[in-house]
Amino acid sequence: MRLTDRTDYALRVLMVLASSGQRHTVPALAEAFGVSANHLTKVVQALQGLGLVQTSAGRNGGVELAAQPSAVTVGEIVRALEPDLHLVECLREHSTCPLEGPCRLVGVVRYAQAAFLAELDKATLADLIQGRQRRLLRAVPSAVSVHGSVI
Amino acid sequence: MRLTDRTDYALRVLMVLASSGQRHTVPALAEAFGVSANHLTKVVQALQGLGLVQTSAGRNGGVELAAQPSAVTVGEIVRALEPDLHLVECLREHSTCPLEGPCRLVGVVRYAQAAFLAELDKATLADLIQGRQRRLLRAVPSAVSVHGSVI
Repeated sequence: MRLTDRTDYALRVLMVLASSGQRHTVPALAEAFGVSANHLTKVVQALQGLGLVQTSAGRNGGVELAAQPSAVTVGEIVRALEPDLHLVECLREHSTCPLEGPCRLVGVVRYAQAAFLAELDKATLADLIQGRQRRLLRAVPSAVSVHGSVI
Repeated sequence: MRLTDRTDYALRVLMVLASSGQRHTVPALAEAFGVSANHLTKVVQALQGLGLVQTSAGRNGGVELAAQPSAVTVGEIVRALEPDLHLVECLREHSTCPLEGPCRLVGVVRYAQAAFLAELDKATLADLIQGRQRRLLRAVPSAVSVHGSVI
């Protein structure tokens, strides 16, 4: 039971962008997190599709936050990015489990999943970084270097 | 975010064994669930290692429950069988996330994970099958046929 790497890196990108309030290049963010720029480009594209970041091309181009950090919850981000929150087969669309009808497990797992997401809904992106912005940015120097942060 | 197939099938096996109170052969259970006997053997071995089932060899051999259904919770089973409940990298032992120190995400995810497992702890194996034993067994006829159920 793990969140995908995509969700994990998306949350990191959002925390850095929210902490700096600036525009960063994808290669600089990728270097800071030790992943390929190709992988992080896909993460950024997914975040752009959700309206959470915006990108601009050109010499001063990069990616920046497009949402209010206090207006987006961790739960919303996880729900939007996780491809499969169906913890067991019977929660998925084409279940083949023969026990599906009489089984009470599905209800128990649904409650547990709801409790999990309800906790994530309590925290906004702003909560994740509050009072920690400087420390968060110091932890990823390559993302905020002259080359990394373009504004 | 999914539970492993192993946990999924382990819960199914336990529900059938608890419903019948009898001994079943692994091939019959595997046929009932539409998986290979080889895969289900590994699931049964894991359950045996946890003391939840016991197996016996020979012509009348098979697998049967070794625990009181009211004494084992879904949470205990999931905790014992899931190889990785560390939803994000920072919950794992060798995290390489540079944000780990100042980041508040780890606390948020820990609370969410605890809320998830707390819900699963509320339901015992007995709760999953209560009043449904006959319907559950009717759903897996090949597991309770003459060849499937040996007692």
